[in-house]
Formats: sequence, C-alpha cells, structure tokens
Amino acid sequence: MTLDSSNPVERLSEDEIWDLLLGARLGRLAVTVAGRPDIYPVNFLAHDRRILIRTNPGDKLVQLTINSHVALECDGQSRDSVWSVVVKGRARLLETEADIAAAESLRLRPWTSEVKTVFVDIDPDEVTGRRLHRGPEPEA
Amino acid sequence: MTLDSSNPVERLSEDEIWDLLLGARLGRLAVTVAGRPDIYPVNFLAHDRRILIRTNPGDKLVQLTINSHVALECDGQSRDSVWSVVVKGRARLLETEADIAAAESLRLRPWTSEVKTVFVDIDPDEVTGRRLHRGPEPEA
Repeated sequence: MTLDSSNPVERLSEDEIWDLLLGARLGRLAVTVAGRPDIYPVNFLAHDRRILIRTNPGDKLVQLTINSHVALECDGQSRDSVWSVVVKGRARLLETEADIAAAESLRLRPWTSEVKTVFVDIDPDEVTGRRLHRGPEPEA
Repeated sequence: MTLDSSNPVERLSEDEIWDLLLGARLGRLAVTVAGRPDIYPVNFLAHDRRILIRTNPGDKLVQLTINSHVALECDGQSRDSVWSVVVKGRARLLETEADIAAAESLRLRPWTSEVKTVFVDIDPDEVTGRRLHRGPEPEA
C-alpha cells in the first residue's frame, strides 16, 4: 500500500507487525483490574510469534492471575512516519523450571539495573498495526 | 533522592511528573472494554494539571462512554535513565462549543496528517512516576 498524504494510514500485515516487534524491546502492557485499566512499561522480546516479558515480582503479576487478558503496545518512528502495533492475548506466568530455562536462553535483557527475575508469556489472539504518515494536518 | 546503581528506582514527585508531562506529546491510552484491556497511542497536551487528548472519531470514543476510567502512560529516556509516568482518571468527550473552543486554543497538534477533530479531557485521580537508572543488571 502506498503511503502518502492522500493515504496517511497504512494497515500493516501480520508479517510486517512481527518484523517490527522483533526489532523492539520496550512496550507498554495494559491490564484490567476490577474493571479499570492499568498500564506499565515493560521489556519484551518477540520470538516464534509470541511475546516474552521480563519483569519484577509485584502488583502486575497478581493482576494477571486474576484477569489474564492483556494488550501490549509498541511504537516507533522514522523521519516520515510513525508506526504502532498492538498484541492482544492471554498472559501466563512461567513457573516450571523448563519454561524458565527456555525463557532465560532467549537473553532478554532488562533496560535498567533493577533485578527482574520473573517471565510472563503472552499467547496472542490478535495483532494489529498501523503506520501513519507524518505531515501537515489536512483541511478538515 | 540520589539516583545511582545502589538505588536504581526513583519515585517522582507530583511536580516532577507534571513537568515531564508538559514536555511530552505522545502517550498511550489504556481503556477497559467488556472487562478486557485495550491500548492506543495518542497525542496529548498537559495543561492546568489535566490532560487533553486530540483524537479521531471512532471505537475508542464509544468505549469511553461505556467505561470512562482510563490510564495514560508516557515515557522518555536520557543517556543514563528512563522515566515513565502514569495518569489515571476519568475521561470525558468535550461536546459544548465553549469546551471545544477552549481546547482548540491550546494548539494541540496531531502527529500525523490524519484529520483528528475530537477532544477528550482527562480529570486525573492519581499520577505516579518513576525514573530508572540505566545500567548493568546487578547480581540476583
């Protein structure tokens, strides 16, 4: 699809979305707690069309055991365009030694010096993505 | 509070949070729809300790009329640290001519050439923010 000012929003294919996710590390995880949204920045790694999150033990993990539906957003930009992708799915805390060893082998590094030793796997139900043309606002 | 590798996470004061929000324009809005989270990148403007979002008419506005609780996340980084702030509150679509004229006077520009003519105001209940020291992972 051509991206120009007459067609400012491009819907991305599933392949394009996973290519962008493979190159990204920082996302934002939205969860629902008692009917209200919450949101956290997270370190993630895309692999085999799944998402692995490395995090610290705490509130957000308790929330995931109550309501495992999550939405992960990730975005980036170039000089001419901005892209954003959203992965919706179910989150699961990795608990077996085998699962944790497999996650550790993927070498997902934290972005800060906090110790983060818990892994969460997201099994995607739906992935969507858009690329938007950067430019002047057209006449309304 | 000193920020170094022995104290990697700094909680930000409300003044620091609003200073960071004043300098930012791109955030991610988390909403809850039928008990499940959804998330969107949004253009926003902080003013008078409130948040103004400019968006296009569509799904997310319908969602806000059903469940007006939202969480807006915004983050940024420097060479040594990463910050993230979250504003939780109630969202309200601006509908009166006076409200819309006041919003337009704030000159919140869209980041793409899409026409976005709808304004949403967030009345914050809670603001939180953290700055994280970027560095090597400590020993677990």
